[in-house]
Amino acid sequence: MLINKKGMLLVLSGPSGAGKGTLYSRLLQEDGDMHFSVSYTTRAPRPGEVDGKDYYFVTEEAFREMLDKDGFLEHAEVHGHFYGTPREPVIKQLEAGNSVMLDIDPQGALQVMASMPDCVSVFILPPSFAELRRRLEGRGTEKQEDVERRLRNARGEVALKDKYQYLVVNDKVDEAFSRLKTIVEAEKLRSTRYFPVVDEE
Amino acid sequence: MLINKKGMLLVLSGPSGAGKGTLYSRLLQEDGDMHFSVSYTTRAPRPGEVDGKDYYFVTEEAFREMLDKDGFLEHAEVHGHFYGTPREPVIKQLEAGNSVMLDIDPQGALQVMASMPDCVSVFILPPSFAELRRRLEGRGTEKQEDVERRLRNARGEVALKDKYQYLVVNDKVDEAFSRLKTIVEAEKLRSTRYFPVVDEE
Repeated sequence: MLINKKGMLLVLSGPSGAGKGTLYSRLLQEDGDMHFSVSYTTRAPRPGEVDGKDYYFVTEEAFREMLDKDGFLEHAEVHGHFYGTPREPVIKQLEAGNSVMLDIDPQGALQVMASMPDCVSVFILPPSFAELRRRLEGRGTEKQEDVERRLRNARGEVALKDKYQYLVVNDKVDEAFSRLKTIVEAEKLRSTRYFPVVDEE
Repeated sequence: MLINKKGMLLVLSGPSGAGKGTLYSRLLQEDGDMHFSVSYTTRAPRPGEVDGKDYYFVTEEAFREMLDKDGFLEHAEVHGHFYGTPREPVIKQLEAGNSVMLDIDPQGALQVMASMPDCVSVFILPPSFAELRRRLEGRGTEKQEDVERRLRNARGEVALKDKYQYLVVNDKVDEAFSRLKTIVEAEKLRSTRYFPVVDEE
Protein backbone atom coordinates (compact mmCIF):
# COMPACT_ATOMS: atom_id res chain seq x y z
CA MET A 1 0.00 0.00 0.00
CA LEU A 2 1.31 3.40 -1.02
CA ILE A 3 1.13 5.93 1.81
CA ASN A 4 1.87 9.60 1.22
CA LYS A 5 2.51 11.85 4.19
CA LYS A 6 2.68 15.51 5.01
CA GLY A 7 4.82 16.73 7.89
CA MET A 8 3.43 17.91 11.21
CA LEU A 9 4.43 21.09 13.02
CA LEU A 10 4.45 20.21 16.72
CA VAL A 11 4.42 23.14 19.14
CA LEU A 12 5.52 22.10 22.60
CA SER A 13 5.05 24.73 25.27
CA GLY A 14 4.50 25.21 28.97
CA PRO A 15 5.68 27.30 31.87
CA SER A 16 9.36 27.41 32.77
CA GLY A 17 10.05 24.37 34.99
CA ALA A 18 7.20 22.23 33.62
CA GLY A 19 9.78 20.07 31.86
CA LYS A 20 9.08 20.70 28.18
CA GLY A 21 12.80 20.78 27.35
CA THR A 22 13.32 17.22 28.59
CA LEU A 23 10.27 15.91 26.71
CA TYR A 24 11.38 17.77 23.58
CA SER A 25 14.91 16.29 23.61
CA ARG A 26 13.62 12.79 24.21
CA LEU A 27 11.05 12.94 21.41
CA LEU A 28 13.65 14.33 19.01
CA GLN A 29 15.92 11.42 19.91
CA GLU A 30 13.29 8.67 19.70
CA ASP A 31 11.15 9.79 16.76
CA GLY A 32 13.07 9.73 13.49
CA ASP A 33 10.31 11.75 11.76
CA MET A 34 10.89 14.75 14.05
CA HIS A 35 13.25 17.56 13.13
CA PHE A 36 14.26 20.65 15.07
CA SER A 37 14.33 24.21 13.91
CA VAL A 38 17.38 26.44 14.34
CA SER A 39 16.41 29.88 15.66
CA TYR A 40 17.80 33.26 14.66
CA THR A 41 19.25 35.54 17.30
CA THR A 42 20.96 38.91 17.49
CA ARG A 43 22.91 38.02 20.62
CA ALA A 44 26.61 37.14 20.38
CA PRO A 45 27.62 33.47 20.25
CA ARG A 46 28.77 32.00 23.57
CA PRO A 47 31.99 29.98 23.66
CA GLY A 48 31.46 26.69 21.80
CA GLU A 49 28.22 27.76 20.06
CA VAL A 50 28.21 27.09 16.33
CA ASP A 51 26.48 29.34 13.79
CA GLY A 52 23.77 27.44 11.92
CA LYS A 53 23.69 24.68 14.55
CA ASP A 54 22.91 26.30 17.90
CA TYR A 55 21.54 29.49 16.33
CA TYR A 56 21.86 31.56 13.24
CA PHE A 57 23.74 34.56 14.62
CA VAL A 58 22.68 37.68 12.73
CA THR A 59 22.88 41.44 13.07
CA GLU A 60 19.90 43.39 14.35
CA GLU A 61 19.58 44.93 10.89
CA ALA A 62 19.36 41.53 9.21
CA PHE A 63 16.85 40.38 11.84
CA ARG A 64 14.61 43.41 11.33
CA GLU A 65 14.76 42.93 7.59
CA MET A 66 13.52 39.34 7.92
CA LEU A 67 10.85 40.50 10.35
CA ASP A 68 9.60 43.07 7.83
CA LYS A 69 9.27 40.30 5.24
CA ASP A 70 7.17 38.18 7.66
CA GLY A 71 10.11 35.78 7.80
CA PHE A 72 9.43 34.53 11.34
CA LEU A 73 6.77 32.17 12.70
CA GLU A 74 7.33 33.85 16.04
CA HIS A 75 9.85 36.17 17.58
CA ALA A 76 10.59 37.81 20.91
CA GLU A 77 12.92 40.32 22.49
CA VAL A 78 14.66 39.12 25.65
CA HIS A 79 17.11 41.33 27.57
CA GLY A 80 17.57 43.54 24.52
CA HIS A 81 18.27 40.70 22.07
CA PHE A 82 15.97 39.33 19.41
CA TYR A 83 15.15 35.65 18.92
CA GLY A 84 12.98 34.18 16.17
CA THR A 85 11.88 30.95 14.50
CA PRO A 86 12.40 31.32 10.73
CA ARG A 87 9.37 30.49 8.60
CA GLU A 88 10.93 29.19 5.38
CA PRO A 89 12.98 26.20 6.61
CA VAL A 90 10.00 24.96 8.65
CA ILE A 91 7.63 25.17 5.67
CA LYS A 92 10.20 23.38 3.48
CA GLN A 93 10.55 20.50 5.94
CA LEU A 94 6.77 20.11 6.22
CA GLU A 95 6.36 20.08 2.45
CA ALA A 96 9.07 17.40 2.20
CA GLY A 97 6.95 15.22 4.52
CA ASN A 98 9.15 15.78 7.57
CA SER A 99 7.80 16.87 10.93
CA VAL A 100 9.21 19.79 12.86
CA MET A 101 9.05 20.32 16.60
CA LEU A 102 9.34 23.65 18.40
CA ASP A 103 10.21 23.92 22.10
CA ILE A 104 8.89 27.36 22.75
CA ASP A 105 7.62 29.63 25.50
CA PRO A 106 3.86 30.27 25.66
CA GLN A 107 4.06 33.75 24.11
CA GLY A 108 5.88 32.35 21.07
CA ALA A 109 3.56 29.34 20.95
CA LEU A 110 0.49 31.56 20.63
CA GLN A 111 2.14 33.41 17.73
CA VAL A 112 2.93 30.13 15.92
CA MET A 113 -0.61 28.82 16.50
CA ALA A 114 -2.02 32.00 14.94
CA SER A 115 0.37 31.81 12.00
CA MET A 116 0.16 28.04 11.40
CA PRO A 117 -3.38 26.91 12.31
CA ASP A 118 -2.64 23.30 11.21
CA CYS A 119 0.03 22.89 13.88
CA VAL A 120 -0.38 20.44 16.75
CA SER A 121 -0.13 22.31 20.03
CA VAL A 122 0.69 20.62 23.32
CA PHE A 123 0.89 22.39 26.68
CA ILE A 124 2.97 20.77 29.41
CA LEU A 125 1.57 21.30 32.90
CA PRO A 126 3.32 20.92 36.24
CA PRO A 127 1.36 18.75 38.72
CA SER A 128 1.20 21.67 41.20
CA PHE A 129 2.60 25.15 41.71
CA ALA A 130 4.40 23.89 44.83
CA GLU A 131 6.18 21.28 42.70
CA LEU A 132 6.98 23.91 40.08
CA ARG A 133 8.57 26.05 42.82
CA ARG A 134 10.63 23.06 44.01
CA ARG A 135 11.86 22.43 40.44
CA LEU A 136 12.76 26.07 39.84
CA GLU A 137 14.53 26.36 43.20
CA GLY A 138 16.20 22.99 42.64
CA ARG A 139 17.99 24.33 39.58
CA GLY A 140 20.12 26.29 42.02
CA THR A 141 20.90 28.82 39.32
CA GLU A 142 17.96 31.16 39.81
CA LYS A 143 17.80 34.08 42.18
CA GLN A 144 14.79 34.03 44.50
CA GLU A 145 13.26 37.01 42.69
CA ASP A 146 13.59 35.17 39.37
CA VAL A 147 11.83 32.14 40.87
CA GLU A 148 8.97 34.36 42.05
CA ARG A 149 8.74 36.03 38.64
CA ARG A 150 8.67 32.66 36.85
CA LEU A 151 5.95 31.45 39.22
CA ARG A 152 3.84 34.54 38.53
CA ASN A 153 4.30 34.01 34.78
CA ALA A 154 3.42 30.32 35.16
CA ARG A 155 0.06 31.19 36.72
CA GLY A 156 -0.81 33.40 33.79
CA GLU A 157 0.37 30.83 31.28
CA VAL A 158 -1.53 27.96 32.92
CA ALA A 159 -4.68 30.12 32.80
CA LEU A 160 -4.36 30.09 29.00
CA LYS A 161 -3.98 26.30 28.71
CA ASP A 162 -7.24 25.96 26.76
CA LYS A 163 -5.62 27.75 23.80
CA TYR A 164 -3.70 24.50 23.19
CA GLN A 165 -5.16 21.38 21.58
CA TYR A 166 -3.66 18.92 24.05
CA LEU A 167 -2.67 18.99 27.71
CA VAL A 168 0.02 16.79 29.22
CA VAL A 169 0.57 16.79 32.98
CA ASN A 170 4.25 16.20 33.73
CA ASP A 171 3.97 14.46 37.10
CA LYS A 172 6.31 11.59 36.22
CA VAL A 173 8.49 12.21 33.20
CA ASP A 174 8.13 8.68 31.73
CA GLU A 175 4.34 8.87 31.86
CA ALA A 176 4.31 12.40 30.47
CA PHE A 177 6.56 11.29 27.62
CA SER A 178 4.32 8.33 26.86
CA ARG A 179 1.32 10.70 26.67
CA LEU A 180 3.19 13.05 24.35
CA LYS A 181 4.21 10.14 22.13
CA THR A 182 0.60 8.93 21.98
CA ILE A 183 -0.51 12.39 20.80
CA VAL A 184 2.20 12.49 18.11
CA GLU A 185 1.42 8.97 16.87
CA ALA A 186 -2.32 9.72 16.71
CA GLU A 187 -1.74 12.99 14.85
CA LYS A 188 0.27 11.10 12.22
CA LEU A 189 -2.99 9.26 11.36
CA ARG A 190 -4.93 12.48 10.63
CA SER A 191 -6.56 12.51 7.22
CA THR A 192 -5.05 15.96 6.63
CA ARG A 193 -1.49 14.64 6.66
CA TYR A 194 -1.75 10.87 6.09
CA PHE A 195 -2.83 9.69 2.65
CA PRO A 196 -3.02 5.93 2.27
CA VAL A 197 -4.00 4.76 -1.21
CA VAL A 198 -6.20 1.65 -1.25
CA ASP A 199 -4.76 -0.41 -4.11
CA GLU A 200 -6.73 -2.67 -6.40
CA GLU A 201 -4.46 -5.66 -5.70
CA MET B 1 -4.44 16.65 41.11
CA LEU B 2 -8.11 17.04 40.33
CA ILE B 3 -8.95 16.11 36.75
CA ASN B 4 -12.39 16.74 35.30
CA LYS B 5 -13.37 15.05 32.08
CA LYS B 6 -16.01 15.30 29.41
CA GLY B 7 -16.99 12.25 27.41
CA MET B 8 -15.98 11.65 23.79
CA LEU B 9 -18.28 10.57 20.99
CA LEU B 10 -16.27 8.19 18.84
CA VAL B 11 -17.63 7.49 15.38
CA LEU B 12 -16.12 4.36 13.87
CA SER B 13 -16.94 3.79 10.24
CA GLY B 14 -15.68 2.16 7.07
CA PRO B 15 -16.84 0.02 4.19
CA SER B 16 -18.46 -3.33 4.85
CA GLY B 17 -15.66 -5.87 5.26
CA ALA B 18 -13.03 -3.36 6.44
CA GLY B 19 -13.31 -4.83 9.93
CA LYS B 20 -14.80 -1.99 11.98
CA GLY B 21 -17.08 -4.38 13.90
CA THR B 22 -14.12 -6.36 15.27
CA LEU B 23 -12.24 -3.20 16.27
CA TYR B 24 -15.40 -1.79 17.86
CA SER B 25 -16.04 -4.89 19.99
CA ARG B 26 -12.44 -5.06 21.12
CA LEU B 27 -12.26 -1.39 22.12
CA LEU B 28 -15.56 -1.68 23.99
CA GLN B 29 -14.15 -4.64 25.89
CA GLU B 30 -10.73 -3.13 26.68
CA ASP B 31 -11.60 0.50 27.34
CA GLY B 32 -13.73 0.92 30.46
CA ASP B 33 -14.53 4.54 29.53
CA MET B 34 -16.29 3.45 26.33
CA HIS B 35 -20.03 2.83 26.22
CA PHE B 36 -22.23 1.62 23.40
CA SER B 37 -25.47 3.10 22.17
CA VAL B 38 -28.61 1.00 21.67
CA SER B 39 -30.29 1.81 18.34
CA TYR B 40 -33.98 2.09 17.62
CA THR B 41 -35.54 -0.04 14.91
CA THR B 42 -38.95 -0.67 13.42
CA ARG B 43 -38.13 -4.23 12.38
CA ALA B 44 -39.43 -7.16 14.44
CA PRO B 45 -37.13 -8.74 17.03
CA ARG B 46 -35.38 -11.92 15.92
CA PRO B 47 -35.43 -14.96 18.20
CA GLY B 48 -33.30 -14.24 21.27
CA GLU B 49 -33.10 -10.47 20.73
CA VAL B 50 -33.93 -8.42 23.82
CA ASP B 51 -35.72 -5.06 23.70
CA GLY B 52 -33.54 -2.32 25.17
CA LYS B 53 -30.40 -4.43 24.85
CA ASP B 54 -30.02 -5.41 21.20
CA TYR B 55 -32.36 -2.68 19.96
CA TYR B 56 -35.27 -0.64 21.12
CA PHE B 57 -38.06 -2.19 19.06
CA VAL B 58 -40.63 0.48 18.23
CA THR B 59 -43.52 1.01 15.83
CA GLU B 60 -43.04 3.04 12.69
CA GLU B 61 -45.35 5.68 14.17
CA ALA B 62 -43.20 6.02 17.29
CA PHE B 63 -40.05 6.16 15.14
CA ARG B 64 -41.45 8.91 12.93
CA GLU B 65 -42.54 10.88 15.96
CA MET B 66 -38.98 10.79 17.35
CA LEU B 67 -37.62 11.72 13.94
CA ASP B 68 -39.90 14.77 13.80
CA LYS B 69 -38.54 15.90 17.17
CA ASP B 70 -34.93 15.61 15.89
CA GLY B 71 -34.52 12.68 18.26
CA PHE B 72 -31.90 10.83 16.19
CA LEU B 73 -28.21 11.56 15.62
CA GLU B 74 -28.58 9.57 12.41
CA HIS B 75 -31.10 7.24 10.86
CA ALA B 76 -31.55 5.11 7.77
CA GLU B 77 -34.09 2.97 6.01
CA VAL B 78 -32.90 -0.51 5.08
CA HIS B 79 -35.16 -3.02 3.30
CA GLY B 80 -38.24 -1.06 4.37
CA HIS B 81 -37.29 -0.86 8.06
CA PHE B 82 -36.01 2.18 9.95
CA TYR B 83 -32.92 2.22 12.15
CA GLY B 84 -31.69 5.16 14.21
CA THR B 85 -29.22 6.24 16.91
CA PRO B 86 -31.16 8.12 19.61
CA ARG B 87 -29.74 11.52 20.50
CA GLU B 88 -30.72 11.89 24.18
CA PRO B 89 -28.99 8.87 25.78
CA VAL B 90 -25.74 9.70 23.94
CA ILE B 91 -25.79 13.32 25.12
CA LYS B 92 -26.53 12.19 28.70
CA GLN B 93 -23.56 9.81 28.72
CA LEU B 94 -21.22 12.48 27.35
CA GLU B 95 -22.37 15.01 29.95
CA ALA B 96 -21.77 12.41 32.68
CA GLY B 97 -18.14 12.20 31.49
CA ASN B 98 -18.57 8.83 29.78
CA SER B 99 -17.50 8.18 26.22
CA VAL B 100 -19.78 6.64 23.63
CA MET B 101 -18.75 4.70 20.55
CA LEU B 102 -20.81 4.20 17.41
CA ASP B 103 -20.12 1.42 14.91
CA ILE B 104 -21.87 2.88 11.94
CA ASP B 105 -21.96 2.80 8.15
CA PRO B 106 -20.48 5.78 6.28
CA GLN B 107 -23.87 7.36 5.46
CA GLY B 108 -24.82 7.39 9.13
CA ALA B 109 -21.35 8.55 10.13
CA LEU B 110 -21.60 11.64 7.94
CA GLN B 111 -24.95 12.49 9.57
CA VAL B 112 -23.47 12.16 13.08
CA MET B 113 -20.44 14.27 12.12
CA ALA B 114 -22.76 17.02 10.88
CA SER B 115 -24.92 16.83 13.99
CA MET B 116 -22.09 16.46 16.55
CA PRO B 117 -19.07 18.41 15.26
CA ASP B 118 -17.07 17.63 18.43
CA CYS B 119 -17.12 13.90 17.72
CA VAL B 120 -13.96 11.97 16.91
CA SER B 121 -14.34 10.30 13.52
CA VAL B 122 -12.23 7.34 12.44
CA PHE B 123 -12.48 5.65 9.07
CA ILE B 124 -11.27 2.05 8.79
CA LEU B 125 -9.68 1.21 5.43
CA PRO B 126 -9.04 -2.18 3.89
CA PRO B 127 -5.45 -2.63 2.63
CA SER B 128 -6.74 -3.25 -0.91
CA PHE B 129 -9.97 -3.82 -2.80
CA ALA B 130 -8.77 -7.34 -3.66
CA GLU B 131 -8.42 -8.09 0.06
CA LEU B 132 -11.85 -6.56 0.70
CA ARG B 133 -13.31 -8.89 -1.94
CA ARG B 134 -11.60 -11.89 -0.30
CA ARG B 135 -13.07 -10.92 3.10
CA LEU B 136 -16.57 -10.41 1.74
CA GLU B 137 -16.46 -13.68 -0.21
CA GLY B 138 -14.90 -15.44 2.78
CA ARG B 139 -17.99 -14.72 4.85
CA GLY B 140 -19.70 -17.33 2.74
CA THR B 141 -23.07 -15.78 3.50
CA GLU B 142 -23.20 -13.25 0.69
CA LYS B 143 -24.48 -13.83 -2.78
CA GLN B 144 -22.06 -12.84 -5.53
CA GLU B 145 -24.27 -9.91 -6.54
CA ASP B 146 -24.21 -8.65 -2.92
CA VAL B 147 -20.42 -8.86 -2.88
CA GLU B 148 -20.26 -6.82 -6.09
CA ARG B 149 -22.69 -4.24 -4.67
CA ARG B 150 -20.69 -3.93 -1.44
CA LEU B 151 -17.48 -3.49 -3.44
CA ARG B 152 -19.07 -0.73 -5.52
CA ASN B 153 -20.26 0.98 -2.33
CA ALA B 154 -16.80 0.58 -0.78
CA ARG B 155 -15.19 2.49 -3.65
CA GLY B 156 -17.57 5.39 -3.13
CA GLU B 157 -17.07 5.33 0.63
CA VAL B 158 -13.26 5.19 0.41
CA ALA B 159 -13.38 8.20 -1.94
CA LEU B 160 -14.92 10.17 0.96
CA LYS B 161 -12.26 9.17 3.50
CA ASP B 162 -11.06 12.75 3.93
CA LYS B 163 -14.36 13.63 5.62
CA TYR B 164 -13.05 11.74 8.66
CA GLN B 165 -10.47 13.08 11.11
CA TYR B 166 -8.42 9.89 11.31
CA LEU B 167 -7.63 7.00 8.98
CA VAL B 168 -6.75 3.51 10.16
CA VAL B 169 -5.65 0.90 7.64
CA ASN B 170 -6.79 -2.53 8.80
CA ASP B 171 -4.05 -4.70 7.29
CA LYS B 172 -3.35 -6.68 10.46
CA VAL B 173 -6.05 -6.46 13.09
CA ASP B 174 -3.69 -6.16 16.08
CA GLU B 175 -1.84 -3.26 14.49
CA ALA B 176 -5.07 -1.58 13.41
CA PHE B 177 -6.42 -1.92 16.94
CA SER B 178 -3.25 -0.43 18.39
CA ARG B 179 -3.61 2.57 16.05
CA LEU B 180 -7.25 3.01 17.03
CA LYS B 181 -6.33 2.85 20.72
CA THR B 182 -3.59 5.45 20.20
CA ILE B 183 -6.15 7.81 18.64
CA VAL B 184 -8.60 7.30 21.51
CA GLU B 185 -5.92 7.81 24.20
CA ALA B 186 -4.66 10.98 22.50
CA GLU B 187 -8.18 12.39 22.13
CA LYS B 188 -8.70 11.92 25.88
CA LEU B 189 -5.93 14.53 26.38
CA ARG B 190 -7.70 17.20 24.31
CA SER B 191 -8.14 20.47 26.17
CA THR B 192 -11.83 20.46 25.13
CA ARG B 193 -12.58 17.35 27.20
CA TYR B 194 -9.74 17.01 29.70
CA PHE B 195 -9.55 19.58 32.49
CA PRO B 196 -6.65 19.08 34.90
CA VAL B 197 -6.54 21.59 37.73
CA VAL B 198 -3.02 22.60 38.77
CA ASP B 199 -3.20 22.66 42.59
CA GLU B 200 -1.30 25.01 44.83
CA GLU B 201 0.15 22.14 46.90
